[in-house]
Amino acid sequence: MDYENFFSNKIKDLKAEGRYRVFADLDRHAGAFPRARVHLQNGSTKEITVWCSNDYMGMGQNPEAIDAAHDAIARRGVGAGGTRNISGTCHNHVLLEEELADLHRTEAALLFGSGWIANMTTLSTLGALIPGCVIISDSENHNSMIEGIRHSRADKKIFAHNDLDDLERKLRETPKDAPKLVAFESVYSMDGDIAPIKEICDLADQYGAMTFLDEVHAVGLYGNRGGGVAERDGQMHRLTIIQGTLAKAFGVVGGYIAGSKAMTDFIRSYGAGFIFSSSMPPAVAAAAQANIRYLKAHNELRERHQERAATLKRRMREAGFPVMDSVSHIVPVLVGDPVLCKQASDDLMNRHDIYVQPINYPTVARGTERLRFTPTPLHGDQDMDYLIDALKEVWTRLGLKAAA
Amino acid sequence: MDYENFFSNKIKDLKAEGRYRVFADLDRHAGAFPRARVHLQNGSTKEITVWCSNDYMGMGQNPEAIDAAHDAIARRGVGAGGTRNISGTCHNHVLLEEELADLHRTEAALLFGSGWIANMTTLSTLGALIPGCVIISDSENHNSMIEGIRHSRADKKIFAHNDLDDLERKLRETPKDAPKLVAFESVYSMDGDIAPIKEICDLADQYGAMTFLDEVHAVGLYGNRGGGVAERDGQMHRLTIIQGTLAKAFGVVGGYIAGSKAMTDFIRSYGAGFIFSSSMPPAVAAAAQANIRYLKAHNELRERHQERAATLKRRMREAGFPVMDSVSHIVPVLVGDPVLCKQASDDLMNRHDIYVQPINYPTVARGTERLRFTPTPLHGDQDMDYLIDALKEVWTRLGLKAAA
Repeated sequence: MDYENFFSNKIKDLKAEGRYRVFADLDRHAGAFPRARVHLQNGSTKEITVWCSNDYMGMGQNPEAIDAAHDAIARRGVGAGGTRNISGTCHNHVLLEEELADLHRTEAALLFGSGWIANMTTLSTLGALIPGCVIISDSENHNSMIEGIRHSRADKKIFAHNDLDDLERKLRETPKDAPKLVAFESVYSMDGDIAPIKEICDLADQYGAMTFLDEVHAVGLYGNRGGGVAERDGQMHRLTIIQGTLAKAFGVVGGYIAGSKAMTDFIRSYGAGFIFSSSMPPAVAAAAQANIRYLKAHNELRERHQERAATLKRRMREAGFPVMDSVSHIVPVLVGDPVLCKQASDDLMNRHDIYVQPINYPTVARGTERLRFTPTPLHGDQDMDYLIDALKEVWTRLGLKAAA
Repeated sequence: MDYENFFSNKIKDLKAEGRYRVFADLDRHAGAFPRARVHLQNGSTKEITVWCSNDYMGMGQNPEAIDAAHDAIARRGVGAGGTRNISGTCHNHVLLEEELADLHRTEAALLFGSGWIANMTTLSTLGALIPGCVIISDSENHNSMIEGIRHSRADKKIFAHNDLDDLERKLRETPKDAPKLVAFESVYSMDGDIAPIKEICDLADQYGAMTFLDEVHAVGLYGNRGGGVAERDGQMHRLTIIQGTLAKAFGVVGGYIAGSKAMTDFIRSYGAGFIFSSSMPPAVAAAAQANIRYLKAHNELRERHQERAATLKRRMREAGFPVMDSVSHIVPVLVGDPVLCKQASDDLMNRHDIYVQPINYPTVARGTERLRFTPTPLHGDQDMDYLIDALKEVWTRLGLKAAA
């Protein structure tokens, strides 16, 4: 077999379908969020405004996190030196795990190198090691959860997205004495809708199931202290496992789970993606801890964040753009075609110095290709004025669909 | 089902078997490697010497890497802000990928959050997407490779460790027209033996197979510029995929693959663990790049590293300790029992201020439990004197086996 030819053809397929991904090559500027410099493919650079960052609060430039990182690097160096078990546990990891347990009011928390590994490892370990476990999973769950469930080889059932009736049906038809786990997210990051956490926990209790809640797009952003939608809804104590990230609202990188001492110790002791990965540098842990602390104490940032998202949605709707239903801080605008979606994004970058990435399959379903805006507390009214004008120009020139 | 009880019982199993893992809680000191402060379970701390770091060259404290990290944090902040596709590509990532491609003399390289994800994602993507692909895997391959192969659901065949006859048998019995991939490591990190890369590539060529070489425990450490054992052996150009880490000799965190432009673009475009993970902070990329550059230019550090490992092996053998066969920088000493292995480690820490982690199942096979020493260029003769004396005391007191 000609392997090179195989790889090239698979790339050609993507290009033919209009969904070959080109990464925007950025230098973000600490202190000037949401501005960045982009390195263009012709070798030149220019200044742009980022409208699609998952650094939802701009905490990547928080001076307290920057100070914490500098301090840790100066004192501890740039790496951890091993896996957690083999010389790679830094005291910064221990402190960060305590901070996360405090955030979620759980007995314990456990760090991973990323949210993807946290989901993959936790779900695959639970599904593989609990004999006869059935995992009941929301149809819109993130790739990392799907891969973890699949890797576990446990029986799985998919319930219709956020559909309590279907969830109950799936729970009812599972043998009463079978161990069960309901896996879902709070904020679904591409549509911006939010799960009915209380009702899902009620059903899980009724049918004796564990609950696994991915709060990746909610921690730091919802709840009085940033504990997520479960905190906002007064349900945080009810989840068996809360999973979150340090890479979005908390502005750094890494993932984690929080829950009981026994559960986290179980995953710590049996989870391959945990055991066999080198641990995060102490400076990453220190910066993340600084940002968690900061967001615990600054609820006014969350209020401003929600106001910015509501304002952008309102203004876009007033201007006639097809803003998709979203009850969260995420503002998706439907394009419905991968080629046009990429073209709109390119035009915004090339003609208007605005960066918003096209979101195509497999991240979202075909036919629902979109631009996904993530307004932050640092996007001002003038930024919105400029964005709306630019979108009008692009929408008209490309003949994109207005709101129905 | 009582889930809490299930988790607790699984922990009790580990404790009963003597292989419950307790992490050493460390503050490493930049500028004083291999010294560190350990936080003991009683709340006190003390200064120790680390003898089991995978920061094999002490590059976590390299002043050039520390400067690069400080600079990136000051200018770019503490995080990247997204996945590579969605606003999370920093120019530091682009530069680092170029540096890695240059290191391995390949067309391209691709970054991952860890070596574990690099292996998991690359092998699972190749195995799942190349129709009929058969993966032929060394029996001692690392967990991350095993998980990736398993997750791919491709046909797999295991060949006896470093056994060319068995590899050829497995290649011969695979249909001639089936796509094939031979997956192996250069340095096997627990035994310290090294694969016959040339001969494996010869067989792969003969039978039309791709090659996937994990050089995690070799990059930075072997070859004139630190390209790994494949560079040392003049075989670097022959591998389809070279996989490495930034977390060991390069002293930071992260993983990568290097190879053709088409292959890396294929994994970039289809690999879930790549697509759906937030990218590494710019400071991590900058520090790693600084260390790769440094090690490219400082072969004398590699010579000193090999001398230190040879000296420690020789001195331990002269003192009668059961040093296992190792032709690399890794110095494993057999204990052969998980409880005694942990006890020896605890005694070295508690009585002698020496830290070397016990290595028990599942990291190594039962019955081969060991202490695994990793001497670095920064471990001096006096450190070795002190270590040998401490080991004599512990070996005698616990009645551990001498060399056969």
